[in-house]
Amino acid sequence: MKTIKSNTYARLCDHVREIALVQSIESLLEWDERTGMPPAAGPYRAEQMSHLAGRVHQLWTDPRMAEWLAELADSPLVADHDSDAAVTLRELRRLYDKKVRLPQKLVEELTRAAVLGQQAWAVARRANDFEGFRPLLERIVALKREEAAAFGFTDSPYDPLLDEYEPGAKTAEVSRVLAALADELVPLLTAIVNATPRAKGAGESTRKTSAAVRAGGDSALDGDFPLDVQATFARLVAEQVGFDFNAGRIDVSAHPFCTQLGPHDHRLTTRYSQRDMTDAIFSILHEVGHGLYQQGLPPEHFGLPLGEAISLGIHESQSRLWENLVGRSRAYWEWLFSQAQHSFPQALTDTTLDEFYRLINQVRPSLVRIEADEVTYNLHILVRFELEQELLTGDLEVADLPDAWHDRYHHYLGVTPQNHAEGVLQDIHWSAGAIGYFPTYSLGNLYAAQFFEQAEADLGSLDEQFRRGQFAPLREWLVEQIHRHGRRYSAADLVERVTGRPLSHEPLMRHFRRKFGPLYGMN
Amino acid sequence: MKTIKSNTYARLCDHVREIALVQSIESLLEWDERTGMPPAAGPYRAEQMSHLAGRVHQLWTDPRMAEWLAELADSPLVADHDSDAAVTLRELRRLYDKKVRLPQKLVEELTRAAVLGQQAWAVARRANDFEGFRPLLERIVALKREEAAAFGFTDSPYDPLLDEYEPGAKTAEVSRVLAALADELVPLLTAIVNATPRAKGAGESTRKTSAAVRAGGDSALDGDFPLDVQATFARLVAEQVGFDFNAGRIDVSAHPFCTQLGPHDHRLTTRYSQRDMTDAIFSILHEVGHGLYQQGLPPEHFGLPLGEAISLGIHESQSRLWENLVGRSRAYWEWLFSQAQHSFPQALTDTTLDEFYRLINQVRPSLVRIEADEVTYNLHILVRFELEQELLTGDLEVADLPDAWHDRYHHYLGVTPQNHAEGVLQDIHWSAGAIGYFPTYSLGNLYAAQFFEQAEADLGSLDEQFRRGQFAPLREWLVEQIHRHGRRYSAADLVERVTGRPLSHEPLMRHFRRKFGPLYGMN
Repeated sequence: MKTIKSNTYARLCDHVREIALVQSIESLLEWDERTGMPPAAGPYRAEQMSHLAGRVHQLWTDPRMAEWLAELADSPLVADHDSDAAVTLRELRRLYDKKVRLPQKLVEELTRAAVLGQQAWAVARRANDFEGFRPLLERIVALKREEAAAFGFTDSPYDPLLDEYEPGAKTAEVSRVLAALADELVPLLTAIVNATPRAKGAGESTRKTSAAVRAGGDSALDGDFPLDVQATFARLVAEQVGFDFNAGRIDVSAHPFCTQLGPHDHRLTTRYSQRDMTDAIFSILHEVGHGLYQQGLPPEHFGLPLGEAISLGIHESQSRLWENLVGRSRAYWEWLFSQAQHSFPQALTDTTLDEFYRLINQVRPSLVRIEADEVTYNLHILVRFELEQELLTGDLEVADLPDAWHDRYHHYLGVTPQNHAEGVLQDIHWSAGAIGYFPTYSLGNLYAAQFFEQAEADLGSLDEQFRRGQFAPLREWLVEQIHRHGRRYSAADLVERVTGRPLSHEPLMRHFRRKFGPLYGMN
Repeated sequence: MKTIKSNTYARLCDHVREIALVQSIESLLEWDERTGMPPAAGPYRAEQMSHLAGRVHQLWTDPRMAEWLAELADSPLVADHDSDAAVTLRELRRLYDKKVRLPQKLVEELTRAAVLGQQAWAVARRANDFEGFRPLLERIVALKREEAAAFGFTDSPYDPLLDEYEPGAKTAEVSRVLAALADELVPLLTAIVNATPRAKGAGESTRKTSAAVRAGGDSALDGDFPLDVQATFARLVAEQVGFDFNAGRIDVSAHPFCTQLGPHDHRLTTRYSQRDMTDAIFSILHEVGHGLYQQGLPPEHFGLPLGEAISLGIHESQSRLWENLVGRSRAYWEWLFSQAQHSFPQALTDTTLDEFYRLINQVRPSLVRIEADEVTYNLHILVRFELEQELLTGDLEVADLPDAWHDRYHHYLGVTPQNHAEGVLQDIHWSAGAIGYFPTYSLGNLYAAQFFEQAEADLGSLDEQFRRGQFAPLREWLVEQIHRHGRRYSAADLVERVTGRPLSHEPLMRHFRRKFGPLYGMN
């Protein structure tokens, strides 16, 4: 009997590995589509991808899946809850149970609405036309309500949708922590706005530098940064923090991303702006954070829960940690700035480290999330998190969304969009049916700060290490504490396990005060 | 009844299109492997590819295939032999019949031997160790004999293997035409070797140029050609002759190739040598020839016989035509040379068009096929074509292959390799189980010259057009005469249909005499 069950377990794992293999091929099709696919190849690419998506669905809903899971439910394999097999079965059961609750028809309608929605969104955004997009968004919200109902929930219909991106998270708990964050963040932002803007170069205004602040621009630097030198520098930056190019590469795409095409195949992308190399560098540090998480997952478990990322929030914590907590720190640039000056002599020779540090850390309420700084970013998320909950519960109608958006931006950030393109139409997420996704960005920031504080407690001054270009201790700590466990723990359990405390807004606020106080003369 | 059969026909076509779709995904995996895949990703990539290969095999051997083909064999659809449906069924029947004749076990053993063979070949070539490679090659030859027997043949065991690459071709006929070619080629080569080497710059030897002939080197030019300028120039060259970048792109790989990833997705690769831009340019013109063939196939029939290339020989005729008959002509460089000088002023300003033209058309007996010139190339092929036939019939043992190789090179080219790496181990083909492939390279040269002569008869002086940068008439002629038919005609039928004569060595010899006579002062 025991032999039969362990054969069943092996068969189940082989089957799930096969699903992952097909998905990895789908990921290559998507990577290629976003990096270099010729324009005319689009329609056939959609056929190739939907063929594989259909195959994945077929494999997940194979009737043997239910049989295997049922047969193994009370087997000796699960006696020890912490064994690899028990963890694997727990996670596969969870995934399978969610998948089978959705009627095939709803899945198909959601897929179709998401494809049409993204196309309509792109058109509406260009035309600044919310009304043209409204019917499709209404359809998507209705389908997401149906989906929430099909999954089932006790407290909020938002719960099962959030759970798709952040397994185990509850809306009430996320609301509590983000509200606590906002309570301290809004006064801090007001203080920063009112503070002497030392970042604008007070006291140095008579000195011309090539890296002048662009008034109202979205870019810190304004120089001439040759693209091929930027590419070499980006690779250097990624290598220095430990990204393994033997199992990865960097390409160019309009929107930077990171994807995994196999246990040893991690693809980062960035984009290069001739006038500002920081765009590419912070994109690379962000994506490298994702890439290091993937490279730290146990490759022998690729495709199975023990080889997969826990949640989008934990994934994002790794990218934000390297982008912001490392990459925007003064210590990091004490290490890298002279190298940057060497690579870009024309653009950076007349810039001081202090100027540069202030330029990459300007805090300014703005309208567009993806251009926001470290501090205000979370307020952009809060707006979306509140609004998408209200859409789902029916407290807010899609027709009233633009007004609510304006009100909420005014409330949290003190700014008001002049058009829909820089307002409610700026993000693709809702048009693609991704409701419940946004809070994982802020969760990522919170996890990152809490992990980072613990890393510093365990490893001593990280600034000291960064100044010497030593990133291995931090990276290895992250592998040891987070990456190597795969999905063994939920995000909430992992945070408590690693830091000894539940998730809190305090580490992030401490980081903000410690960093921006001196920068804005608010000691 | 008729309705049922046309439904059957639609089902069959859908099934075959699905096979093509899965194969197109496999092609992307291979393209990525050869262009940019990180080294460590190799083993999983093999799993991804063999998964899809297994799926393709599964789809081909679906029992419904035999039923559908049997049901349609006597249907009204095939009454008109020239109808699209009749052509499609004829070709699918042919493919299916060959596939089902091979026992599953033999297919698997051949696949395994080919994978092991390629690995062993790479090691043996580096180590100049034929004996280490011999057992695997013996195994491969034995399996290819088995394969030939399984396919069945009347005249030569080489026939069914050749047929895999050049459907419908017969060994005796290919032997006849290549022997006729050799009878005239060997004396021509002797005459060239004995002729005054005007290509070496006689009468100009006192003048220094940046494009000096490298004594004994494999490269015509020796200058400084910045890689990014070469990439821009390669794209220009491809665009000028009509390659559609809306449905294609150029990447870099160690060995240039062309592949098709969908009806509107054509990928070329090349490689760049800093010291000689001709390597990249002729590679690009070669691959563009393949790409234009693919882009000229009817996309609506993608995956079905009417949307596929006829044979490797016809495919190669298109690449050789653009590489050699267009790209190595004086008229082409009368158009392009000043543009090349503009792009590479440092390397080319002191070179004249005449010098350049002679440099890219040096004829010299050599040891390595892929570095051979237009004239000697076919003698390299003849050596391989003779030897692989003898291996297959048993007239030659693998153990005796190196000696036979030396004798044959001495006989046809008057040169003798000093080691196996530049001798019998130089090509990957046999190690990968590709026996019957080599003659398609020479067939490509022969087809190309015969088509080109006919195009000139139909379109007037092509040189006149090339001088003005007009390539559309030739390209459109090729689409009209060759590409748009897909596999409607066999290669032999197509040649007769287009040129009014069966394949002959004469057009190629006429081309050689007309071109190299003046170049080598042999008028």
